[in-house]
Amino acid sequence: MMADSELTRHLRSVLPSEAHKALISSVLPTLIDSISDISKILKRSQHVSRAGSANAFGDDQLNVDVLAENSIRKAISQCPFVVTASSEEDPIERSSQDISTGSVPEEHYTIAFDPLDGSSIIAPNWTVGTIIGIWQGKTALNQLPATKQVAAVLGVYGPRTTAIVTLRLPGFDPVCLELGVGEKGVEDTEIIRTAVRLVEPPFKTRYFAPANLRSAAEDAKYMTLVSDFIQKKYTLRYSGGLVPDVVHALVKGHGIYISPVTAASKAKLRRLYELFPLALIVESAGGKAINPADGTNILDTPLGDLNETAGLVCGTAEEVDLVKKALLA
Amino acid sequence: MMADSELTRHLRSVLPSEAHKALISSVLPTLIDSISDISKILKRSQHVSRAGSANAFGDDQLNVDVLAENSIRKAISQCPFVVTASSEEDPIERSSQDISTGSVPEEHYTIAFDPLDGSSIIAPNWTVGTIIGIWQGKTALNQLPATKQVAAVLGVYGPRTTAIVTLRLPGFDPVCLELGVGEKGVEDTEIIRTAVRLVEPPFKTRYFAPANLRSAAEDAKYMTLVSDFIQKKYTLRYSGGLVPDVVHALVKGHGIYISPVTAASKAKLRRLYELFPLALIVESAGGKAINPADGTNILDTPLGDLNETAGLVCGTAEEVDLVKKALLA
Repeated sequence: MMADSELTRHLRSVLPSEAHKALISSVLPTLIDSISDISKILKRSQHVSRAGSANAFGDDQLNVDVLAENSIRKAISQCPFVVTASSEEDPIERSSQDISTGSVPEEHYTIAFDPLDGSSIIAPNWTVGTIIGIWQGKTALNQLPATKQVAAVLGVYGPRTTAIVTLRLPGFDPVCLELGVGEKGVEDTEIIRTAVRLVEPPFKTRYFAPANLRSAAEDAKYMTLVSDFIQKKYTLRYSGGLVPDVVHALVKGHGIYISPVTAASKAKLRRLYELFPLALIVESAGGKAINPADGTNILDTPLGDLNETAGLVCGTAEEVDLVKKALLA
Repeated sequence: MMADSELTRHLRSVLPSEAHKALISSVLPTLIDSISDISKILKRSQHVSRAGSANAFGDDQLNVDVLAENSIRKAISQCPFVVTASSEEDPIERSSQDISTGSVPEEHYTIAFDPLDGSSIIAPNWTVGTIIGIWQGKTALNQLPATKQVAAVLGVYGPRTTAIVTLRLPGFDPVCLELGVGEKGVEDTEIIRTAVRLVEPPFKTRYFAPANLRSAAEDAKYMTLVSDFIQKKYTLRYSGGLVPDVVHALVKGHGIYISPVTAASKAKLRRLYELFPLALIVESAGGKAINPADGTNILDTPLGDLNETAGLVCGTAEEVDLVKKALLA
């Protein structure tokens, strides 16, 4: 276990859960250390170039992707409570321990992560992020995400390094924090906000982030929806990075992110590495996250295959309901 | 004069201008040092994102603006070749020297800057920037921007710190560089690209950034233009930060940024602190920057008052021409 940090002390006080002691005192601090580490990797990666390999999803893999992946892999290999890990870069569930100790601690977790989301906006130096889901048990497969994914972390690499951390443990209210991640890792990480919340109506400013907008050219419903947002004078904020786009809504207190799936455009978002952690965080902040194809909650459908993809509508609950109606009408 | 840096050596070799020696060896290095300094200020300003009322947030925000302002003011006060300065925070042209030496160096400049552009996206930790224009002589007022504004700098604060630097000196081709700004300032700053250029058609991916999109609700021409971009499957990237939005186009090699002025929405962009430096950079990269109200080049109209504002259409030349036609039809 690590020395006490502000994060650990706070979480212990609001979540005095004996069953999740190591999650709070070891797993989360380990991940925050990694986010601090990745921020340093990005800071010094001025020559963002291609690594010359393609990941399993066929994306061009950047050097920084590999370095971020390695940072998290190395960190969790030293945390005995993380027994399984898989990632967008290497989407196979494997033991995450360097040396099999033979005995698995009673409290143990599976980690699923996207080490660096937003490759298309790394070159222009826009904010990018890390997405991490933490599951109770030895696998994320065929589990109910709503109850088995107990925590999630977003790392946000911009002018500062920040993180959104959510825990939804059985018997406790969900917790959603914003952290100012320190240069030394969890040790000098501050809690910026103890309750990240999407606000209730009336809304002062309403934001929308229409992803995959090209698909509106061939989808009348999406085109109408976007026109409606403009007519209703919503403010546009769309970076094209999933982490900054969702974090924008969380920090501003309002927002609707829409990544529909249409006949002409395939679902591109990974359920395990992107959608589940984001959905847990948005729900914990009082919002909703649904699959635009059928209107179901993202967290209500178990994962049959690590590579499953889907669309996403998430953010302020009222807005999600309106978008759901419009797209499924 | 400072010790030689990679930036200074490069600029001296491509711009062997005796008349602008101090610009290259002192003024630009001074400003790059400030950009490095501002990146550190932002890095440690975690509490700009503290939740609360708009007022409380506004105060925090002001602090970061003031710190950035002070950083640049302090730096240029120690550079004898900068004789006048004004900024978006303090829009009055004043002598920028702490102690009047009585004698003005033969080579001397006026600096006009926006220390921290993008206040609305500081809280969610999105990329923000600094905008600086450098004018030959003692004032920017009533001068032809196209010839008297000889250089411009954009500082880009994201996961890394980068900068775009342009010089357009009489008798030389314009130079537009991308820098990786170092932790120590100009001393460990690297040149990432020696020729930032918007590409020629055919374009692989076409990007659009529709600013002030709410105004399209009351302006049929803008609404039609936006619908056309969607129908033609342009990729949307719009952060709401002028620096990251324009830098996106420069780094990707294509893009069109549109901030129209309509009956219902006033011109908000400052000509001196925002539009002139951006226009010089975009033109130096082979693009165009026009006033959407009349289609004239931003740099062709002298400044009558430091507080003048206007709209902006800039980016890839072909796209600017199309938007001009559409908005002025």
